[in-house]
Amino acid sequence: MSSWVAHPEVVLVVFDLLGIFVFAISGALVAVRKELDLFGVLVLAGTTGLGGGFLRDVLIDATPPAALADWRYLLVPIVAGLVAFWFHPTLGRLERPVTIFDAFGLALFCVAGAAKALEHGLGPAPAALMGMVTGIGGGMIRDLLAGRVPVVFRAELYATPALAGAGVAVVGIEAGLPVLGPAVAGAVVCLTWRLLALWRGWQAPMPSGPASV
Amino acid sequence: MSSWVAHPEVVLVVFDLLGIFVFAISGALVAVRKELDLFGVLVLAGTTGLGGGFLRDVLIDATPPAALADWRYLLVPIVAGLVAFWFHPTLGRLERPVTIFDAFGLALFCVAGAAKALEHGLGPAPAALMGMVTGIGGGMIRDLLAGRVPVVFRAELYATPALAGAGVAVVGIEAGLPVLGPAVAGAVVCLTWRLLALWRGWQAPMPSGPASV
Amino acid sequence: MSSWVAHPEVVLVVFDLLGIFVFAISGALVAVRKELDLFGVLVLAGTTGLGGGFLRDVLIDATPPAALADWRYLLVPIVAGLVAFWFHPTLGRLERPVTIFDAFGLALFCVAGAAKALEHGLGPAPAALMGMVTGIGGGMIRDLLAGRVPVVFRAELYATPALAGAGVAVVGIEAGLPVLGPAVAGAVVCLTWRLLALWRGWQAPMPSGPASV
Repeated sequence: MSSWVAHPEVVLVVFDLLGIFVFAISGALVAVRKELDLFGVLVLAGTTGLGGGFLRDVLIDATPPAALADWRYLLVPIVAGLVAFWFHPTLGRLERPVTIFDAFGLALFCVAGAAKALEHGLGPAPAALMGMVTGIGGGMIRDLLAGRVPVVFRAELYATPALAGAGVAVVGIEAGLPVLGPAVAGAVVCLTWRLLALWRGWQAPMPSGPASV
Repeated sequence: MSSWVAHPEVVLVVFDLLGIFVFAISGALVAVRKELDLFGVLVLAGTTGLGGGFLRDVLIDATPPAALADWRYLLVPIVAGLVAFWFHPTLGRLERPVTIFDAFGLALFCVAGAAKALEHGLGPAPAALMGMVTGIGGGMIRDLLAGRVPVVFRAELYATPALAGAGVAVVGIEAGLPVLGPAVAGAVVCLTWRLLALWRGWQAPMPSGPASV
Repeated sequence: MSSWVAHPEVVLVVFDLLGIFVFAISGALVAVRKELDLFGVLVLAGTTGLGGGFLRDVLIDATPPAALADWRYLLVPIVAGLVAFWFHPTLGRLERPVTIFDAFGLALFCVAGAAKALEHGLGPAPAALMGMVTGIGGGMIRDLLAGRVPVVFRAELYATPALAGAGVAVVGIEAGLPVLGPAVAGAVVCLTWRLLALWRGWQAPMPSGPASV
């Protein structure tokens, strides 16, 4: 216990890799459903796991993205893709745990993305936006490559909790608190909201009236 | 009157924000038609309004994009998205004014994009291309996210006026004229051509013969 | 003969432009099949020919991309697009030669992309990945813009030869060999594998069992 308390950055890397793993599993399962081949499965695993961070790093000019400078970030989605390729029937029965892990990944990514954007000199509102992009970007690229409208536009609340969590983290960091506190608070807000949305079936409001436009 | 003549950069910002607003409205209306939720409407508003500039800034390495460094650039598409979300039936009846405003946005974006690319050291031909990308990029990202082939590939002339306007601006600036003259000339060329194309139904030529390939 | 032996960089530029030309032809033919207009044909020609390099350059922060700093890189896809626009029935009868040229383009791009990524300080595994991205990225953007799931996910082996060729080049360069040797070896590996896959109909493995997820 004491060792990771003394080295919080180890915890962050572990969580980061875990988030990438879970996102990559979700991408690989979409590829299996679309009857793509092994390569398609691996690419969708990689883009879903790493795409949000790539988008953020390109926009805030933190290139080359961290994932290209550290082989573990490439290995994790490959392993996730292979796992999904061989064990997708089992994973199908694990849909609920996968969704919950995905909520943890979202919570971590939105906070980490916002903190990194602040570090690179962005203002509070853009940094919160970049946090949201980090959390939802991978899934959006996954859906584009798989030829479907991004589910984040239609399903239970997903982006709003990410934006809220990123916003909480940004406000706390800008207020001068040590990073860990606001980061944990932001992640808890995102995670709680997302899990409540899943449990209660909360959805974003739809445009009123007929889409007569 | 005299105040904005003395401060032309204020006029530029106002026009820029107006262009973003109009583009964002067009993105939000596509989202409403696709029956996306509030979040989908806001994201399509934001990517349509800001996407062309993002693409340009990432390609010419002017990152982080201006829109991430100035909160007004984020506020405008959010307001546009909310307006379209609540008043889309009214906006549907305003299709003609929206199209004409969109032509103004295109004219401004192609010229501003080309000028910015020149400032960042690109040659004349790539700068004109970047001007076109700035004008049409947001709409292309909108259509990708909404799951349809970009309309710029099929409808009335849209990209050609943008390229022509950007080209006129580039030639004038490279010839050493003060920026304002070529910028206005380029915008007028783009706007006139686009409005004529709308009025007369001009379309780009189609491949001849059957698509037997 | 002796002149290009003395100036290998001339050979590289010629091969690079040839690769862009062939990729651009493939993009333009997809646009013709989709009944896009002249502009759509030119844009798909340009994004297919240059998109892989753009993606790589943005990710490794080698912006602005080479293609925006050298007018020949813009001219080649325009010519290819016009050729396909006017002569697509003839090109349709040339499908086999076009596919073979495309394999040459793939072989060159994967090696050149990997070498450029190494030069920009990436490690071996990310550099090999960037080589693959350079080879397949243009075709993926083409398919996204044309509204279809990227064929690289479903057809005969395409990405694996590119990754293998890039990997061979990376290993040789990292071992300290002069660049030309590993580059040629990598290109030969990619080309041979790709042509064998085409000839024998090799495909990547599919997920086993029903996609019951």
